[in-house]
Amino acid sequence: MHPEALPRTDDLRPVTEWSSLSRGLWRATLGQMADEVRYTDLAAEPPRWATLAALPEVPFPFADGDVRVGLTPDHKVVIRLPLGPDEKVYGLGLQLDGLLRSGQVLTLNMDHWGTGGGRTHAPVPFYVSSRAYGVFLNTARFTKVYCGVGNRLGSPANPEPVDRNPPADEPQPGPWLALPPGDAVEAQVNAAGLEVVVIGGVTMLDVVCRYNLYCGGGALPPLWGLGFWHRVHAEFDADQTTREVAEFAARGFPLDVIGLEPGWMSKSYPCTYEWQRKRFADPAALASDLLAQGVRLNLWVNPYLSPASRIHAEMTPWAGSHLVWLGLVPDYTLGTPRRLLAEHFRREHVDLGVSGYKIDEVDGYDCWLWPDHATFPSGTPGETMRQTYGMLLQRLLYQDLFRAADRRTYGNVRASNGAASAYPFVIYSDAYDHREYLTGLSAASLCGVLWTPEARSAGSDREWLNRMQTVCFSPLAMLNAWASGEKPWSYASVADAVREVIELRMRLLPYLYSAFAAYCFHGVPPIRAMILEDAASGGACRRAGRLDGQANPYGLGSLVEATDQFMFGPSVLVAPFYGSQATARQVRLPAGVWYDFYSGTRVGSAETIQVDANDLGNRIPLFVRGGALVPMLAAPVANTRAACGADLEIRVYGGREGAFDLYEDDGSTFAYQQGAFRYRHLRVVDGVLSESVSAGAGPALFGAAVARVMG
Amino acid sequence: MHPEALPRTDDLRPVTEWSSLSRGLWRATLGQMADEVRYTDLAAEPPRWATLAALPEVPFPFADGDVRVGLTPDHKVVIRLPLGPDEKVYGLGLQLDGLLRSGQVLTLNMDHWGTGGGRTHAPVPFYVSSRAYGVFLNTARFTKVYCGVGNRLGSPANPEPVDRNPPADEPQPGPWLALPPGDAVEAQVNAAGLEVVVIGGVTMLDVVCRYNLYCGGGALPPLWGLGFWHRVHAEFDADQTTREVAEFAARGFPLDVIGLEPGWMSKSYPCTYEWQRKRFADPAALASDLLAQGVRLNLWVNPYLSPASRIHAEMTPWAGSHLVWLGLVPDYTLGTPRRLLAEHFRREHVDLGVSGYKIDEVDGYDCWLWPDHATFPSGTPGETMRQTYGMLLQRLLYQDLFRAADRRTYGNVRASNGAASAYPFVIYSDAYDHREYLTGLSAASLCGVLWTPEARSAGSDREWLNRMQTVCFSPLAMLNAWASGEKPWSYASVADAVREVIELRMRLLPYLYSAFAAYCFHGVPPIRAMILEDAASGGACRRAGRLDGQANPYGLGSLVEATDQFMFGPSVLVAPFYGSQATARQVRLPAGVWYDFYSGTRVGSAETIQVDANDLGNRIPLFVRGGALVPMLAAPVANTRAACGADLEIRVYGGREGAFDLYEDDGSTFAYQQGAFRYRHLRVVDGVLSESVSAGAGPALFGAAVARVMG
Repeated sequence: MHPEALPRTDDLRPVTEWSSLSRGLWRATLGQMADEVRYTDLAAEPPRWATLAALPEVPFPFADGDVRVGLTPDHKVVIRLPLGPDEKVYGLGLQLDGLLRSGQVLTLNMDHWGTGGGRTHAPVPFYVSSRAYGVFLNTARFTKVYCGVGNRLGSPANPEPVDRNPPADEPQPGPWLALPPGDAVEAQVNAAGLEVVVIGGVTMLDVVCRYNLYCGGGALPPLWGLGFWHRVHAEFDADQTTREVAEFAARGFPLDVIGLEPGWMSKSYPCTYEWQRKRFADPAALASDLLAQGVRLNLWVNPYLSPASRIHAEMTPWAGSHLVWLGLVPDYTLGTPRRLLAEHFRREHVDLGVSGYKIDEVDGYDCWLWPDHATFPSGTPGETMRQTYGMLLQRLLYQDLFRAADRRTYGNVRASNGAASAYPFVIYSDAYDHREYLTGLSAASLCGVLWTPEARSAGSDREWLNRMQTVCFSPLAMLNAWASGEKPWSYASVADAVREVIELRMRLLPYLYSAFAAYCFHGVPPIRAMILEDAASGGACRRAGRLDGQANPYGLGSLVEATDQFMFGPSVLVAPFYGSQATARQVRLPAGVWYDFYSGTRVGSAETIQVDANDLGNRIPLFVRGGALVPMLAAPVANTRAACGADLEIRVYGGREGAFDLYEDDGSTFAYQQGAFRYRHLRVVDGVLSESVSAGAGPALFGAAVARVMG
Repeated sequence: MHPEALPRTDDLRPVTEWSSLSRGLWRATLGQMADEVRYTDLAAEPPRWATLAALPEVPFPFADGDVRVGLTPDHKVVIRLPLGPDEKVYGLGLQLDGLLRSGQVLTLNMDHWGTGGGRTHAPVPFYVSSRAYGVFLNTARFTKVYCGVGNRLGSPANPEPVDRNPPADEPQPGPWLALPPGDAVEAQVNAAGLEVVVIGGVTMLDVVCRYNLYCGGGALPPLWGLGFWHRVHAEFDADQTTREVAEFAARGFPLDVIGLEPGWMSKSYPCTYEWQRKRFADPAALASDLLAQGVRLNLWVNPYLSPASRIHAEMTPWAGSHLVWLGLVPDYTLGTPRRLLAEHFRREHVDLGVSGYKIDEVDGYDCWLWPDHATFPSGTPGETMRQTYGMLLQRLLYQDLFRAADRRTYGNVRASNGAASAYPFVIYSDAYDHREYLTGLSAASLCGVLWTPEARSAGSDREWLNRMQTVCFSPLAMLNAWASGEKPWSYASVADAVREVIELRMRLLPYLYSAFAAYCFHGVPPIRAMILEDAASGGACRRAGRLDGQANPYGLGSLVEATDQFMFGPSVLVAPFYGSQATARQVRLPAGVWYDFYSGTRVGSAETIQVDANDLGNRIPLFVRGGALVPMLAAPVANTRAACGADLEIRVYGGREGAFDLYEDDGSTFAYQQGAFRYRHLRVVDGVLSESVSAGAGPALFGAAVARVMG
């Protein structure tokens, strides 16, 4: 069937389409992109061009002509990006099995969590190189990425073959390798076009920041979003919910948000988005009653529309070819269905005071959602819809509902993707391995998404404490009891320790809110992988120049690749107890001098230390970099309403000096986008605090501050 | 980016292209097929049209217009084939996790074994319906199949939605289902064209037979291929190999084929295909010396060509864009490279007497083989090459080497696909779960491939015995000691029992060879899933008419779906001990009356029985259908050479009557393809055997026969 053909010619050509977008940002549009959705088309906010333009200039990371592109006969774009011999590649989405992608093949395909293979809740096609640049494949398609895997015929970088079973007396050039190192990242995008964005940087963290800034900056949650969240059992009614909230107060457990699960709805799976009046006779009264106690309502939804919903008939013409749980899959790329749902949500929930949503089931196993070949009214392909449905829902809720109402929101979503950093939604999962949950905190920081290692239940008191401690150092501190019915105090022997860590979370609000401001305005992930921290500390990964084939020019050896510890805000290293390391573990300290958070005593520098739960009074291991200030509330609060105007204690670690820019705004509206925020420049000299306030129209948020020298 | 669009219209149209090929065979060519490879293009032999034409006529299984097709905007073909409410779908390749595919989504993508998801050594796009028809998607592309998964908007078959969390007093139409039953198989083929072949039948087995006949019939191994095989350790030399063969004889273990592993080659991974002279100074002498003892040589290869090979320079222009283990990937769709390799193999091996090959590494993880976007000189896409590379190698060896030399071959391959039934290669795997290995025997029978549950090593004597017993009732009875160095007698306490089962395998050669003849000429799988047996027995799955929406019209309830037992030849049911059921297990007997193979006593009918290893003297549980004859050698033989002309014992089960058509030919050449075979019509009446011989030019193979009434 194949005629004898001429010998193969290389079908890839150099990419020459690069256009410079800003400092360290280059874009090439390859092939036919007219019908393709770019993730940046769905971003919450426009790129932060002004911030980008103020960053240092960095050189384009590839030599001329080294990036190559081709179109396969079956209409897919192939791109080849060279790798140096010791270069490592990290990221490619919220993978729960680690950060390092070198030597792997990943299929970036939205799915209901996965460890290995690339299918995950956020299969973001963005990788960061150890040589301090990044590549973002900005096309909402299934993408298969070969990371340093594969050797092209004729490449001068190919190693010499090695006999696998040589006789004893035959010398070989080296050990036989199942995976001979490749010299490129090659990717195939399931489309006739591809937009690729190359992102330079001074460090790996700088690369991530520029990616986030290009995607609109990071999300800025309302202050209340950073308090403690509790989701009640799926079949709770209004009385049970009210009693649950009262018990938090009675037991002295902080609470900011109460989440209702599917039973609040008249029908779910598929959904009406209308109240189940047998359980919630007067939802408006419930919402305002709770709000009077400083507690906000969050509602579970999934996006599949029940025939019993009042908007079903009107939505039907705007739905895709396939149902999910027998509900419509509306095409929210289009204005009409988008307006229809937003209006329904506004009338039914937001006008009543509902603060936000948990968007479930937008990730989905293949057998739960629509097939890849499903069709939609807009012509958006089924696979593009699969890659972006979580983003479409986030866009609808964020832009059409909450920003339109000038109320910030914060919530959960089970699927996100590229260019999603400005959306105030935190990814969660049905997965529940504590080790994977920790990895998720690091992985999320490399791809512009937020992740919560929510607590649901535990096999032991100790596990419960460890999980509650972990989640209190995440973007969203939540107990999700939809199935278990657990309370924070359910595990009696650790109930006090659980209360203590939630109280610590509350006391850290000023510090954490400033970290989110840095995410919003500068793209700095508030919770970060250690590999970024090392980069930030300047010891490793500084970009020394162009790719030149030199081995290990950037001091990679000093990178801490640990994924069971992470950075929380600018200066706090968190190393939770988990799994088999339930009460004792090792902690790898990066460069710099590190101090125990609780006592202020020096614990080490660029070394691995052992920590034991007994020595810490069963508290979570926390370490602070020397010279850092940690602004905290002077005392615990029951919720974030009480945090406003509360006095501050500014902890000083590793001496008697330090500085911190404390961010303040109204904590709840979008006025900050018009400049209504301020920074309090806290400065401690010889143990004495002074402060000055930035010019600007911002309101005060916290109260008076005093320094506390630790150690 | 998407303009407001008109409401979606259904983009699928009825398939009207059906052409009738033969009895129960309809083909439609959909979309653009000019550049696509069909699996049937790569079949070993042409369809057995004459045999097909003699089968009963059956009606087309779908109502007019019920099969629909469409082309996605991204150039993929979608096909939709309706399912009845109680219809079940089985097959879709050599899946090691079961047979039933209803409710699953499978990605049929060649891979290095897999349990779940569809990636496997033989991702054959052929399914069999419980309503006794099959569908073969005859295009060598990645294919995603949704089996009764998904509900199209507007389908009258959609169930009514159910509230997942109703209040206690709200009645629901039924239980909430995570997977509401779908009413179709929908498949997306990664190509602009698709050839679909619908196969009717009287029973499910009949459907499978017609599929195999369309694909050229089944493989007919040489008689020696059905003897016992032993593969030596990878680093064995000629002396070690010779001593190993001698030890088989000394210990009284039958042996027909000795397999050499990679160390026989001057370089492997990538390969030269040239002898490692330090280990094999005179391979011709070794081969003829072994053959004089009745033992044949089989050589391990993988298809990736080392730069150290003499044919490397000449092959380079014919290689794909990417290397595997730094070796060339020749484009064996083309004549020149095919001739080049065949000539090299002939000169280096076949002319010396080598009997066949084990083709390794043609399945491959994504990270081991070429990327999907790799290019090849013929223009064959990388994914098509991935789906078919194992078949291309089988074709080269079978057609260009062995059939050309008029010598039958038998060997191993690690990847096959659609339309491969006539290739005399048996699939094996690096997987090693005994339960999965048993499932493989059933799964292979539904998709026209052969599978060996090879023994390699064991954690206990009992496990060793169980594995050796299983493999002796498979298409290829092999100990593969390439890594372990084990011998059949390595587990001392079971060495005699292992010898006994190998001897039983040898004694069953006449029975098994006839079963393979039925595979070759009539498409009947020699080892079969129980669901096919039930169909064959006539109790279930008879096709009663057109699809009519009636519930369960075919008595599906009587189907035995067990995958840890299987049929061996026409009448023997094999239920090995395995895993946690190492010495006791249940056996599900289909309709008919069943007898213990060893004693001839009645064990049951259409019921589940318990068997215990002690009761069987540690022999493998074997059961024979009442009325069957089992022709065996009267005594064990050391190898198949000794079987030729040997006397036969014809066992009679369940009475004193029976009939069996015993197939005979020369056992080694292709003369049977020209009619040089015969059948001995054995008939037992009141315990007395008579026989007549079919007209034909066939030679005698076995000796004189006497009946032995069992029980």
